[in-house]
Amino acid sequence: MDIRIDLGRLRSDVLELGEIGRNEDGGINRPSFSPADLEAREWFKDRILSAGLEYRVDGAGNIFGRLAGSGKTVMAGSHLDSVVNGGIFDGPAGVLAALECLRCLKDEGAKPKKPLEVAAFTDEEGNLSGDFLGARAFTGTLDREMLEKGLTQFGLPLTEILKNTEFTLDSILAAHKDRPEIAAFLELHIEQGPVLETEDKVIGIVDLIAGKNYWRCSFKGKASHAGTTPLELRQDAFLGLADFMLKSTQFVATHHYGSMVTVGKASVYPGAFSIVPERVDFSLDFRSTSPETLDEMATTFQTLAQDIAATRGLGFDFRIMDKTAPVEISANLKTLMAEICSSFGYSRMTLPSGAGHDAQILASVTDAALIFIPCEDGISHSPQENIRWEDLEKGTNLLLHTLIQLAS
Amino acid sequence: MDIRIDLGRLRSDVLELGEIGRNEDGGINRPSFSPADLEAREWFKDRILSAGLEYRVDGAGNIFGRLAGSGKTVMAGSHLDSVVNGGIFDGPAGVLAALECLRCLKDEGAKPKKPLEVAAFTDEEGNLSGDFLGARAFTGTLDREMLEKGLTQFGLPLTEILKNTEFTLDSILAAHKDRPEIAAFLELHIEQGPVLETEDKVIGIVDLIAGKNYWRCSFKGKASHAGTTPLELRQDAFLGLADFMLKSTQFVATHHYGSMVTVGKASVYPGAFSIVPERVDFSLDFRSTSPETLDEMATTFQTLAQDIAATRGLGFDFRIMDKTAPVEISANLKTLMAEICSSFGYSRMTLPSGAGHDAQILASVTDAALIFIPCEDGISHSPQENIRWEDLEKGTNLLLHTLIQLAS
Repeated sequence: MDIRIDLGRLRSDVLELGEIGRNEDGGINRPSFSPADLEAREWFKDRILSAGLEYRVDGAGNIFGRLAGSGKTVMAGSHLDSVVNGGIFDGPAGVLAALECLRCLKDEGAKPKKPLEVAAFTDEEGNLSGDFLGARAFTGTLDREMLEKGLTQFGLPLTEILKNTEFTLDSILAAHKDRPEIAAFLELHIEQGPVLETEDKVIGIVDLIAGKNYWRCSFKGKASHAGTTPLELRQDAFLGLADFMLKSTQFVATHHYGSMVTVGKASVYPGAFSIVPERVDFSLDFRSTSPETLDEMATTFQTLAQDIAATRGLGFDFRIMDKTAPVEISANLKTLMAEICSSFGYSRMTLPSGAGHDAQILASVTDAALIFIPCEDGISHSPQENIRWEDLEKGTNLLLHTLIQLAS
Repeated sequence: MDIRIDLGRLRSDVLELGEIGRNEDGGINRPSFSPADLEAREWFKDRILSAGLEYRVDGAGNIFGRLAGSGKTVMAGSHLDSVVNGGIFDGPAGVLAALECLRCLKDEGAKPKKPLEVAAFTDEEGNLSGDFLGARAFTGTLDREMLEKGLTQFGLPLTEILKNTEFTLDSILAAHKDRPEIAAFLELHIEQGPVLETEDKVIGIVDLIAGKNYWRCSFKGKASHAGTTPLELRQDAFLGLADFMLKSTQFVATHHYGSMVTVGKASVYPGAFSIVPERVDFSLDFRSTSPETLDEMATTFQTLAQDIAATRGLGFDFRIMDKTAPVEISANLKTLMAEICSSFGYSRMTLPSGAGHDAQILASVTDAALIFIPCEDGISHSPQENIRWEDLEKGTNLLLHTLIQLAS
């Protein structure tokens, strides 16, 4: 079939949805089950029904639009929720691209053999309960105790948030029981990084999704007077962190090129200009597409921090907050997408994803694939998030023809 | 005269005053003109009068106890105010040692030629308006505009705080007009550092008081996703600071041994574990007893920060918040005190003071000297602040006999 998606229609959907939950700074505040998200859900239901698709919502609030067929379902989608003060493309681009693909097939009167579904998963951004609440509910990998005990990032228990909705802990935990059998899951997403733009490519075919470790760490030393304590007698916890940051970054850059380490958050105590810091609490985020590298980083960072602590008269502690394993994308899907790119003349590259996505959770129950399109300056999770519309058009055409092939 | 001070009496004064303003953690909260400070002032007035000295308070709330004589006044003292959650010795040790010296001379019926005064200066700790409000008022080096525009560290204008007292901006600014002519000023103080303890000496004779620069600085980069931004494409402001901290410390340690540099305070933005920091604001405190070294440090730190910024794709800004020049202690006073130490068999060393003290302000109008006694583990500005009483006894005997010589 030589059909193409309608960019005008897709763009108008993206911009329309991008008005829901918009704040004064132009950013999007649309965490799952917030009033803005409930409005977006109604809007999306209407788009699904207007397109002539079957509307369905599961017990976790995941929304589906179905084009009937027989056999296992070929699914594409992403999420509609946003971080606080986020952009309009992170999530919605993938959901609305999938909607446009199904709308296009419906309009053309195409009759793919297998059923096709567009999916919007709840709380990908983890405002309510770690990341991927909806996708984890869909795949049956949630833990009841975690949901009962955890707090949402708004300081309320999840059960309080659910009172605004038709969903309950029980319905969320049972959501996976009603899901159709899935033949494949495809997700289009903005890259949220600068690689495609830097390499001047339109399409990124993700081969691996990085695993992530998130630790909370502390160096502990001794507070002393900044005017009277000789440098060699100090136990400066903050200098310990400075040393650790440079050495851990250098280790990753030289031994594990392509892996990541970030200290994004730090609190210095007591935090006075004239007092040598006695303690610094900091976050350590490290990611890799290789499980062995993740393990080696974990071991090396511990040893490094303990060596620095010993040299500088400090203590070091850490606590593991989160740990996810890397996911490998199906070779068949990568090959298929590469062929479609070649036939359409779309410039492409293979790259890993350092960020987590719904596709990585779906990969536990089906073949999953992830298509990246460039975003301006690599900026995401920000009101400045932006794309070139022609890139979204090409990415959506790739999605469309991958779906057609998979559903035939 | 072969007289010695009465440690029992001095210790009981220190401990009694150490109960005023004590908090639940055992720390002292006694900023100038707080209810606790007003209580301490009444207590101190009573001690002066009980000792048979003349009580006087100037327009800045500086308190004096006088033993009559003729000619210029020989003065000794320090301050009664504390930092928030401070110790019982920082300040009071010097005031009460001076009181004990005068009480001793009075009791012995000694008639020194010159008048002698114990002095307690207001707000040495700078809770109300930069450091040394009282000493600066006494020496006539205050700036009206700074007092009018500045806020105390409690967020109120100084004029609001003064409403609890008999003092006004006008009386503070005029305080220096009534001061007697001063022959010399002596201050005993705990070291607030670990040098005397480490070197096992009882007396520190300060030769130089360090000058201090306090800057507020920022590195500015670009926020980006911790999972998707390759290390080599990051503009990580916090890594810039880590680099700067290690290099600036190394520069001082290797080129200006004995000078100090401290980053005691830092705020990382946006401050999320999964976002590469776009900005870090930090304090830079550097001190030296040499004016040339202070200038060289200022130049080098600027160049260093700008080089790091250029290498790492960052911006660097700074603002000078405070700048005081180093002060040299009178050679005559140092020699006199060294001779007294020798004759009493007190172990001593000459050392610079990295912290600021009232003596450094008084040095602008008279010969000033500073005597240090050790403090446990070098700890100060903390409820853990502690001394050995026999060190205070020896320091006070040194103060007594220096006063006797100067007043003869």
